[in-house]
Amino acid sequence: MQKQKLKAVVLLSGGLDSATTLYVARSQGFDLHALSFRYGQRHIHELDSAARIARAAGVMRHVVLDVNLRAFGGSALTDDIAVPKHREMAEIGAGIPVTYVPARNTVFLSLALAWAESLGATDIFIGVNALDYSGYPDCRPEFIAAFEQMANLATKMGVEGGARFRIHTPLIKLTKAQIIKTGTDLGVDFALTSSCYDPRADGRPCGACDSCELRRKGFAELGLRDPLER
Amino acid sequence: MQKQKLKAVVLLSGGLDSATTLYVARSQGFDLHALSFRYGQRHIHELDSAARIARAAGVMRHVVLDVNLRAFGGSALTDDIAVPKHREMAEIGAGIPVTYVPARNTVFLSLALAWAESLGATDIFIGVNALDYSGYPDCRPEFIAAFEQMANLATKMGVEGGARFRIHTPLIKLTKAQIIKTGTDLGVDFALTSSCYDPRADGRPCGACDSCELRRKGFAELGLRDPLER
Repeated sequence: MQKQKLKAVVLLSGGLDSATTLYVARSQGFDLHALSFRYGQRHIHELDSAARIARAAGVMRHVVLDVNLRAFGGSALTDDIAVPKHREMAEIGAGIPVTYVPARNTVFLSLALAWAESLGATDIFIGVNALDYSGYPDCRPEFIAAFEQMANLATKMGVEGGARFRIHTPLIKLTKAQIIKTGTDLGVDFALTSSCYDPRADGRPCGACDSCELRRKGFAELGLRDPLER
Repeated sequence: MQKQKLKAVVLLSGGLDSATTLYVARSQGFDLHALSFRYGQRHIHELDSAARIARAAGVMRHVVLDVNLRAFGGSALTDDIAVPKHREMAEIGAGIPVTYVPARNTVFLSLALAWAESLGATDIFIGVNALDYSGYPDCRPEFIAAFEQMANLATKMGVEGGARFRIHTPLIKLTKAQIIKTGTDLGVDFALTSSCYDPRADGRPCGACDSCELRRKGFAELGLRDPLER
């Protein structure tokens, strides 16, 4: 009889970080349950990337949930606020940019927790990164630790079952180059991913937003060509 | 010039606890922003109650957000699992019942946090109750404290602005009778509320689920007649 594999819920935006995270979870032997959100993002095409990556990785199930954060406003990623372009690395690292979406990772992790508990799973993966990152507060280790603690008090599994939810952040201390190296080694097809916050009408990356800049820097450091560059 | 009032986000299910909580927030002078969810609950009629209560309380805005927790399953409130009926108070207090929805309050508070931060508000109200309650882990004070701590690490306002989010739980130590007394004193019209987990086709309460039992006990202790009883 085949041994039952452990299930994990993996947050999958469709970017290269979450794609790599999905493959890390796969390499650790989990049955993959991928979760994406239609949250009002202007870069909605990332959901096509998420679907392609989920298929390529062989997930058990991929859920795309509607959570309209646009109802609340307050971000360049969901509102009619200009996405900053052509910023230097020093600028990207300094302060929290207008692309920050209020409490987004809290909302996403909460919904991942709801699914995990329904599945009887204790493992949740999220591709946050505290190094080559965009300055978002909800990407820091101290936030993740606080969320984990809260999760174990919030749930039936935590309270009655004595289960310990674990929020896995395999990329949190990696540079963008190290993430791309990790993903490449695990077989991620980066041609399927999309990182741009503000893509052109035909879906091609703008090449100038913070996310495009970080991606370019990562591939350049490795001396690799980004398959999305034409 | 009129002094600007502080804004608060209040979770409003349409039941008597959340209606009372809304009026408590109003009595404390907050500009009210009410938040309800279409989460796949079978007692969807509670949203009509929420809309009526929001109007009666004079909220600034009432947002009803779609978050389909039915996509995950795992509860009698969202799935085809029978809602328990005619349970004794001792049974209702013992263990976590099948009406528990995985991580529901975590999801709801996360979305309240997203709205609060977008509004520049630090005050969130939730009508959880740890005494005459249904045994849900996400109604306990230790959960609320952990959520509050996480919220202040999760957000731009918490990190850059030094703001302190506060999760107000004015009912947490009250009996159901005390909640009804509080609401009555503040002018809540309980005829507008709905508590039943499993209402009849015409919207009338079943009178036998845990929520109906707790409501009946509360009114009985006060020697009051529930305006929903005919």
